Amino acid sequence: MTNKYYMPTRVIMGKDCITENSELLRALGKKALIVTGAQSAKRNGSERDVKTALESVGIPYLVFDKVMSNPTISCVYEGASLAKENGVDFIIAIGGGSPMDAGKAIALLAVQAIEEESLFSGHYENKVLPMAFVPTTAGTGSEVTQYSILTNDKAQTKTSIASDLLFPTVTFLDAKYTEHLGVITTINTAIDALSHAVEGMLSVRASMVSNALAVSCIQMFMNCVPDMLQALQSGSEVFDLQQREQLLQASLMAGMVIAQTGTTAVHAMGYSLTYFKNIDHGRANGLLLGEYLKLVERVQPDLTARILAAMNFSRAEQFQKLVNKLLGAKEKISSAEIEQYCKLASQTKNIGNSVVKPTEEDLRTMFTQSFAN
Amino acid sequence: MTNKYYMPTRVIMGKDCITENSELLRALGKKALIVTGAQSAKRNGSERDVKTALESVGIPYLVFDKVMSNPTISCVYEGASLAKENGVDFIIAIGGGSPMDAGKAIALLAVQAIEEESLFSGHYENKVLPMAFVPTTAGTGSEVTQYSILTNDKAQTKTSIASDLLFPTVTFLDAKYTEHLGVITTINTAIDALSHAVEGMLSVRASMVSNALAVSCIQMFMNCVPDMLQALQSGSEVFDLQQREQLLQASLMAGMVIAQTGTTAVHAMGYSLTYFKNIDHGRANGLLLGEYLKLVERVQPDLTARILAAMNFSRAEQFQKLVNKLLGAKEKISSAEIEQYCKLASQTKNIGNSVVKPTEEDLRTMFTQSFAN
Repeated sequence: MTNKYYMPTRVIMGKDCITENSELLRALGKKALIVTGAQSAKRNGSERDVKTALESVGIPYLVFDKVMSNPTISCVYEGASLAKENGVDFIIAIGGGSPMDAGKAIALLAVQAIEEESLFSGHYENKVLPMAFVPTTAGTGSEVTQYSILTNDKAQTKTSIASDLLFPTVTFLDAKYTEHLGVITTINTAIDALSHAVEGMLSVRASMVSNALAVSCIQMFMNCVPDMLQALQSGSEVFDLQQREQLLQASLMAGMVIAQTGTTAVHAMGYSLTYFKNIDHGRANGLLLGEYLKLVERVQPDLTARILAAMNFSRAEQFQKLVNKLLGAKEKISSAEIEQYCKLASQTKNIGNSVVKPTEEDLRTMFTQSFAN
Repeated sequence: MTNKYYMPTRVIMGKDCITENSELLRALGKKALIVTGAQSAKRNGSERDVKTALESVGIPYLVFDKVMSNPTISCVYEGASLAKENGVDFIIAIGGGSPMDAGKAIALLAVQAIEEESLFSGHYENKVLPMAFVPTTAGTGSEVTQYSILTNDKAQTKTSIASDLLFPTVTFLDAKYTEHLGVITTINTAIDALSHAVEGMLSVRASMVSNALAVSCIQMFMNCVPDMLQALQSGSEVFDLQQREQLLQASLMAGMVIAQTGTTAVHAMGYSLTYFKNIDHGRANGLLLGEYLKLVERVQPDLTARILAAMNFSRAEQFQKLVNKLLGAKEKISSAEIEQYCKLASQTKNIGNSVVKPTEEDLRTMFTQSFAN
């Protein structure tokens, strides 16, 4: 089987890396559209730093700060209209996965007339606006992937645009923007990154390179677990900047992994939990990951052994117990909901991407067990 | 400190990946120049596969098969003239480090008039011919780096052209081309890759991403050591295709590492051994690596501990003993040679790139000890 590695985004990492590398923005064009959410980029200082960097190289900009959590299709068309009307040359997305995923779609739609029906086709002309990304959470990995995940009300799920055109041109990673994230958001996003790393190793497209990155990501997550548990117990923030950097790097590596491997049954199932039950994306993956790892363990114990070794565990159940501790009290799920979500999950491409492909019965069992405490 | 990750080459891996992905060549242009050495690409089947792939998509080609080991500056100017005279659109380099490094310089010189005096300046116009690379040894990593290392008679050493322009567009990794490499070449090239990984972790530019790749590379090298030792003892080939793939992937990852970190004092010293004493490049690094690791161990034991842990060693001396076993009887070196090489090494940029910067006295001791049996 032919395998591949491709991730052409230039990643710049370190404190104040945006303002210290503003000349990289100059190379992207003469006018920028900042794509972000309503609040966090203003609070954590990232929007200020981006504006300072743009001003220092004399680039005018507009701000589109209407991106909501789990961005909708209409949101990205609105952003693209703004980009076109104002003749911007490039996009700067700031935020968690939502503004970055929206930013990618906007960069595409700003230069191509794509009808909503064809948005997820994967067939586009070979043009897109250059993009600079500034992640302010440590989980999505969107800053180094070719995916834009949008809420698709017609399909009642989240659907991804996947195209090499969507790799950002440059990404700036500065952990200081993640310092003010609350404990729950920190844990949920870290679990999202963990899920990317683990699912990458469970993907039919896993390679030695993606596995190398995934194992490191898992180890870095585990390094931060004691402080996550302590933070949950004390209810207060205990992560120092070095740990924030570790989580941000883990998220970066996990993004580099799924750029190669895609995601698996876990994401396939998790999307329904987010779409219908409004469960945070990282949390949704975390709720399901242990149960899926147990399924894989029964069929391919060598595969799970490699993943568990990176955690110093020997059984998938130990992993599940740890994640359950991090997730706390679980939501309720009804049989009717499970039936509906199984149908939707079984139709996704992510299932086919899994080394161990769950049957509909497997999906039902996993949903049920994942919510049993 | 600002850190970076950038490696935009598309890597395609697997058996028959060239002939199965010939459409990727079509995207590079209408006429190709194959750059290779006189013999090995013909013997191992790689040149045949490249020609088959080109013919299947109707791309005419010329062959420049005059690249020698440690290619000279005049060789790359000759190749570039041929490329210009024949109006080729892209370069396909096949072979070990020498044809690939030559291929990069030819791709640059074919579209830019650069005088020999300015060849290593790092300042070029923003244009280069697209490149497709086919490594047929597992060591150099040139297929995923921005470096072209040429023999520089004026400076009496090997000198590198370093530019992001030199990242190949696409690289095809098929381990079958490495199956017929002899035991000594297999070991020397594997040690070259190992040296890249270890030096990457000893570089001031090491990052979490480069360390993740380096650790995996070191582990993969160690997996293959028992069979290397057995092959040396029996004098016959004992590597199966799976091990060849592991060595090729280790070399790829080590290349991705030095694309971020550059190399250190070891390469700085090794270049003289190759230039003046004609010691194979990988072997030269191997001769010096243990002694440098011992120097670092004295100053920064935490740093070497991380490297040694990936080998299941606790002391740099254990590592040195293992490499010495792989290298066998050593060459002789005179005090006059050592004096000369110390001077040359201390002038290189690689020394400044090392976390632990050896003094000239350190260099003298390392050269002496490395050749003491």
